[in-house]
Amino acid sequence: MDNNLDALDKQELAGRQDLKEAIYERLKQMIMRRDFTPNERIDAVAIAEKLGVSRTPVRDALNMLDAEGFIKTVPRQGIYVKGIYRQDLIELFQFREMVELYALESGFQTLHQQREDLIAIVHRFEAAIASTSYDGVRAMEADIELHRRIVASTGNRIVMDSYDRVNGHVQMVRAYYLQDMQRIKQAHQEHQSFLAALEDGDKEGAKLQLKRHLEETLANLLSIIDIYKVF
Amino acid sequence: MDNNLDALDKQELAGRQDLKEAIYERLKQMIMRRDFTPNERIDAVAIAEKLGVSRTPVRDALNMLDAEGFIKTVPRQGIYVKGIYRQDLIELFQFREMVELYALESGFQTLHQQREDLIAIVHRFEAAIASTSYDGVRAMEADIELHRRIVASTGNRIVMDSYDRVNGHVQMVRAYYLQDMQRIKQAHQEHQSFLAALEDGDKEGAKLQLKRHLEETLANLLSIIDIYKVF
Repeated sequence: MDNNLDALDKQELAGRQDLKEAIYERLKQMIMRRDFTPNERIDAVAIAEKLGVSRTPVRDALNMLDAEGFIKTVPRQGIYVKGIYRQDLIELFQFREMVELYALESGFQTLHQQREDLIAIVHRFEAAIASTSYDGVRAMEADIELHRRIVASTGNRIVMDSYDRVNGHVQMVRAYYLQDMQRIKQAHQEHQSFLAALEDGDKEGAKLQLKRHLEETLANLLSIIDIYKVF
Repeated sequence: MDNNLDALDKQELAGRQDLKEAIYERLKQMIMRRDFTPNERIDAVAIAEKLGVSRTPVRDALNMLDAEGFIKTVPRQGIYVKGIYRQDLIELFQFREMVELYALESGFQTLHQQREDLIAIVHRFEAAIASTSYDGVRAMEADIELHRRIVASTGNRIVMDSYDRVNGHVQMVRAYYLQDMQRIKQAHQEHQSFLAALEDGDKEGAKLQLKRHLEETLANLLSIIDIYKVF
């Protein structure tokens, strides 16, 4: 893990009032970017030393990551990064489908009114995957924003919070998904089909397109698991 | 808060290997039973002293409660029990409806097969609300179990975990709801109507009955908020 911890820099914490929050965000980012590998042990003492802070904010940050399911604490053994397995992915996508289709059902008029915003987001996705200047991080951000906007149309903070909590885990696997250019282009077409139904005010059509998009994304991720054995 | 802390007893921690977990469970129970009032300040140092433990497990337990939304930490001011407001309840019940109707859609066959178990749970509810031996806690437990069984029919741990996390907040208000005998009897009838549809294998009927039950429960809780101004 020594190489991974080299990425931590105490300068990042300068000016942050809430150390716990800052360390939590940084460690979560590192887990999602796979700077740590699944099932890797996390050394809280080494992290505190590298960041030049006491163990308390590191411990607090790790407790938050534990509560959100990014790490697991094994009593008297240590703290480990959680792996994501086939069944986890299937359940994650069932959860996403439940929430996103509920959002389309309850928030469709809101989304129809916001269609220009959504089209702009999909244009950003398109620009990010342009073959001459491919930018995987920007594509991922646009993809996340599109789906979060769909969920936000519920106007329900409890639904949004539970989605964000679960979706953090999806982000862990998006990094792999975004290496598959054929799949990215297909996803872009699926986003466009969804937007076309939205523009037409066709709620059932939009639900169908979104459902297919999630199914295709899941199928692609499961095939990646099988090929790379990474999770 | 002194009176509330009198309820804490260091004997409870005897034999518990994971102090953090034991303190977390006890404090959560106290919040749900309204031993603390909403917006009341929580004194971590006083809790540690009362339990005869160091501040670390108390701090860890409070971090877990914070992550789950039972308390809120105001930097440089303190830790407070969260209040539940009108809009929170509305969003909580939208979330429950989303999850429980999804469960009926995807798990109906499973529930139909388990109908004897569900009938037994509703019989426990009925016994608990018998006028000669009313037992509010037992009624609440039976009610929670019925709804959790519905959600468990998805076989999806992510859906169940997100439901449990949110449902803890619903339990905070059940204590009030269960003081209204007229509403309790009505809820029992709604449970029975749901079971009747389940026995008939009538999925759409079961969804309709469950939807109505949640709507009636929400309406009752909102009227309690208006009468007692407790949240």
